[in-house]
Amino acid sequence: MKKIALFAKVHDPRCQVVAGELIPWLEARGYIPLVEAHLARHLEWPKGLASETIPDEADLVIVLGGDGTLISVARLVGDRRIPILGINLGSLGFLTEITVDELYPALEACLAGEYQTSERMMLHIIVEREGQTIAEHRVLNDVVINKGALARIIDLEATINGFYLTTFKADGLIISSPTGSTGYCLSANGPIIHPSLECIVITPICPHTLTNRPIVVDRNAEITLTLQSQHEDVFLTLDGQVGVEMKMGDVVRIMKAVSKTRLVISENRDFFEVLRTKLKWGER
Amino acid sequence: MKKIALFAKVHDPRCQVVAGELIPWLEARGYIPLVEAHLARHLEWPKGLASETIPDEADLVIVLGGDGTLISVARLVGDRRIPILGINLGSLGFLTEITVDELYPALEACLAGEYQTSERMMLHIIVEREGQTIAEHRVLNDVVINKGALARIIDLEATINGFYLTTFKADGLIISSPTGSTGYCLSANGPIIHPSLECIVITPICPHTLTNRPIVVDRNAEITLTLQSQHEDVFLTLDGQVGVEMKMGDVVRIMKAVSKTRLVISENRDFFEVLRTKLKWGER
Amino acid sequence: MKKIALFAKVHDPRCQVVAGELIPWLEARGYIPLVEAHLARHLEWPKGLASETIPDEADLVIVLGGDGTLISVARLVGDRRIPILGINLGSLGFLTEITVDELYPALEACLAGEYQTSERMMLHIIVEREGQTIAEHRVLNDVVINKGALARIIDLEATINGFYLTTFKADGLIISSPTGSTGYCLSANGPIIHPSLECIVITPICPHTLTNRPIVVDRNAEITLTLQSQHEDVFLTLDGQVGVEMKMGDVVRIMKAVSKTRLVISENRDFFEVLRTKLKWGER
Amino acid sequence: MKKIALFAKVHDPRCQVVAGELIPWLEARGYIPLVEAHLARHLEWPKGLASETIPDEADLVIVLGGDGTLISVARLVGDRRIPILGINLGSLGFLTEITVDELYPALEACLAGEYQTSERMMLHIIVEREGQTIAEHRVLNDVVINKGALARIIDLEATINGFYLTTFKADGLIISSPTGSTGYCLSANGPIIHPSLECIVITPICPHTLTNRPIVVDRNAEITLTLQSQHEDVFLTLDGQVGVEMKMGDVVRIMKAVSKTRLVISENRDFFEVLRTKLKWGER
Repeated sequence: MKKIALFAKVHDPRCQVVAGELIPWLEARGYIPLVEAHLARHLEWPKGLASETIPDEADLVIVLGGDGTLISVARLVGDRRIPILGINLGSLGFLTEITVDELYPALEACLAGEYQTSERMMLHIIVEREGQTIAEHRVLNDVVINKGALARIIDLEATINGFYLTTFKADGLIISSPTGSTGYCLSANGPIIHPSLECIVITPICPHTLTNRPIVVDRNAEITLTLQSQHEDVFLTLDGQVGVEMKMGDVVRIMKAVSKTRLVISENRDFFEVLRTKLKWGER
Repeated sequence: MKKIALFAKVHDPRCQVVAGELIPWLEARGYIPLVEAHLARHLEWPKGLASETIPDEADLVIVLGGDGTLISVARLVGDRRIPILGINLGSLGFLTEITVDELYPALEACLAGEYQTSERMMLHIIVEREGQTIAEHRVLNDVVINKGALARIIDLEATINGFYLTTFKADGLIISSPTGSTGYCLSANGPIIHPSLECIVITPICPHTLTNRPIVVDRNAEITLTLQSQHEDVFLTLDGQVGVEMKMGDVVRIMKAVSKTRLVISENRDFFEVLRTKLKWGER
Repeated sequence: MKKIALFAKVHDPRCQVVAGELIPWLEARGYIPLVEAHLARHLEWPKGLASETIPDEADLVIVLGGDGTLISVARLVGDRRIPILGINLGSLGFLTEITVDELYPALEACLAGEYQTSERMMLHIIVEREGQTIAEHRVLNDVVINKGALARIIDLEATINGFYLTTFKADGLIISSPTGSTGYCLSANGPIIHPSLECIVITPICPHTLTNRPIVVDRNAEITLTLQSQHEDVFLTLDGQVGVEMKMGDVVRIMKAVSKTRLVISENRDFFEVLRTKLKWGER
Repeated sequence: MKKIALFAKVHDPRCQVVAGELIPWLEARGYIPLVEAHLARHLEWPKGLASETIPDEADLVIVLGGDGTLISVARLVGDRRIPILGINLGSLGFLTEITVDELYPALEACLAGEYQTSERMMLHIIVEREGQTIAEHRVLNDVVINKGALARIIDLEATINGFYLTTFKADGLIISSPTGSTGYCLSANGPIIHPSLECIVITPICPHTLTNRPIVVDRNAEITLTLQSQHEDVFLTLDGQVGVEMKMGDVVRIMKAVSKTRLVISENRDFFEVLRTKLKWGER
């Protein structure tokens, strides 16, 4: 490991201090920091790089921020198998489970090659209109089809591996990876999936049919969703960050991505501990 | 009763036949039908009236259609205490619990003064921006504050009678009357409220705080909601039919309306029977 | 106010200290403490009284403990309209919303007649077997009909004011007062009811029919539940504390009790603050 | 295939007719029917066999009844890999997805070797008391730890692969296989798992901690549950059919069973069709 990429949630107040110390620390030890342009400007560091170019060169990616920041970096890293070290600046995250206090020990372990990663399944999304692919994306957490605030209920025909599942009549539908199960999905009554179980979760949002429940299918399932209602205001949202407008007849195909996100995991806590902390278990 | 208003879901295929027979039936018995303009055009009946003018004159309002049609007529009728006879053209409704087959017996009973009504509490909604009232409405079912498809979670500070309740972090919030409890509210995991219990139900949509639950307060509660997040795409929707765009800082005040909707109720079925039929109880 | 009843959760470690100070405090001011026998024995106080006899004499009842202790005292107080001052020894309770630190100021206010009460609707329960009343009780929180661990699903036919509601097929059914809505009912997905709204909540436990939802009816509803399945192991539980074995054909009638529980309320916090604290709102 | 086992839900009215025709049909074609003793007595067929002895000899097992009957036969068949043909006598089942009308075509296909099976993961359960194994079972659907009707909330400490998960405070806990996800688990708000996804679902029943949600872990997870509360009335139930009384300190270990149940699947319908039919999807 020579080149260490650095991404951060620039608006976070602790970011400047932590990143400001980290860069000279890396340089002093002979590593080359690849600093994302926005962050570089914020730190008045002259050698900022465009975010798209960084993953091609980096040997390790450090993310300072919260889960949202890490998710956007994971999409950027894509199918390059670079380990990502997520450091939460504020409260513990499902993906950023290492605290600022643990940054340097965790980083030293990484640089020494003494680290473990959790390989996280991603989803591959293809949006087709009139037989043409109009968008293609990879997400770590989830893809959501959602109606606008004024639109009425939407109709989404769902098939799995070519078999008809149902036509959801709902405000929307969340398709999530195991990693995404602790995100938006939880608010819509989805189950918690351990990240080691590769699968895809389908969770309706405010379903009109009261017996609709979250459905979990295996990683080989190819899910096809066809928008069957005419609305002016239906969107596909990728990891809660990128939106694609949908039209009646559009088809969304969702399957396991070939690549995985490699998260460096903490020595000090496991998935269940993060879960207990985030969901405040043990307390009523 | 002399003047009988007639509203219908014009696009329903059975509407033309049923309304086409009903008008001469009324005239033959000396009643004056007040036919809503769209419907009149559809029936090629020359004396259509603007919908706003009808409630001032009508002694009875007949609605042919579904619950949605009746709800929009109820807003129109407002605080005039005119009985509304809802006839469902298709499947049984919570508000249109009388079938086409029962139309004439039910109508004869109404005209003879032998009918019972269920008085339904309505909600009064005031939207304020920078201290000015920008909208004022009355709803039978619900008022919903909802984010757009692309917007992130919204923050809504809620107080009840001046006491701070919580700041909801959610996709949205449904404030419903007892009548509205069997509408959108049910899809968002709200409870079923018997229409004779006057109260207001507050149901979060996909709440970020997993312990948020529907809250039911008494009819004297004045609920104040303040939009605390900056979004371009947050709307207030009244009975799922009318939308008002909201800006950060807007305040929505919700309280019991002075007026009630008077629904003519069926002799043949009660609220629980409608509930069992609509929710398919008795079957798994 | 002359005679002050004192009940406590005897096994609570703080009980001895707090009660041990409170009794001389009352005597020094000329009040007569009526100390429940178990507590008296624990404190080596010679004049303990049988719990049943205390409410007939008391002008004020102090409860030291948690909500469970207060609920059992409320059943004992029954329809005597004695104010109850609930002091929580540990974590804040929905019914014991005054802390130990606030005990003396709150008590002085009570003794000076400067206090407010929240009147809490209670439920009256009659159990009938073969036309005979076999049990009659009053509860502050809830009555639960529940199958034993080994029994299969039970069938409970429910009517409201003589109208058939449904035949619940479930593990059990919770009938709760507004006060009880924040108890067991919440774990079974029931709504939160503000205590000022008088009503009755019917919440199925693990219903077999997936569209079954909590139902809220008005305070004048008389609910009749008939056990229609043959089991050896079905019980009626009153406030989670008293159990009555049920047989096939047994009828449970539930209605609003004539009497109410009068809780002395805190000057320092309202229902919503207790709710936020107990449910950890504001945090994810 | 020579020896065809026959089990049935003896009390089902259609059983006698269907089984009464099936036995001579098999004999006429040279197959040896192995008829379970109760059923044999019911049919006045002289050669009934003890149910335990049948699986050792059978080449195919036919079950006439519902899912409950099939589940008990599956436990009996255990790790012998005999295909099971489930015929529902009444309404469609998740496991008995072949109707009586389809019995003979489906059976002929089986006997000709032209059939497909769905291999269903089972759970292996070990109950330990003071370090000794006191019970060991295999289930197709689920294992439930449940409190009795009068017992209070139970405390169950859960670990997964040795990592502490949480201490559930609840009425009980359901551990289910994918097959079991559409059983009791659904009533307790569990997700639907497609049977091809091998995993284990942990669903609390009426959890005291409102943020507790169903958790899905991978097939290699070994779950350990320790009863930490003192009750007289806590039971472990296997597939809803066999009960084991539990004491404080008892440990239940749950893991994937080595054997699988081989269900003959219908040519005429898939899992999703059964789901739609059973849950009445497409209707509100």
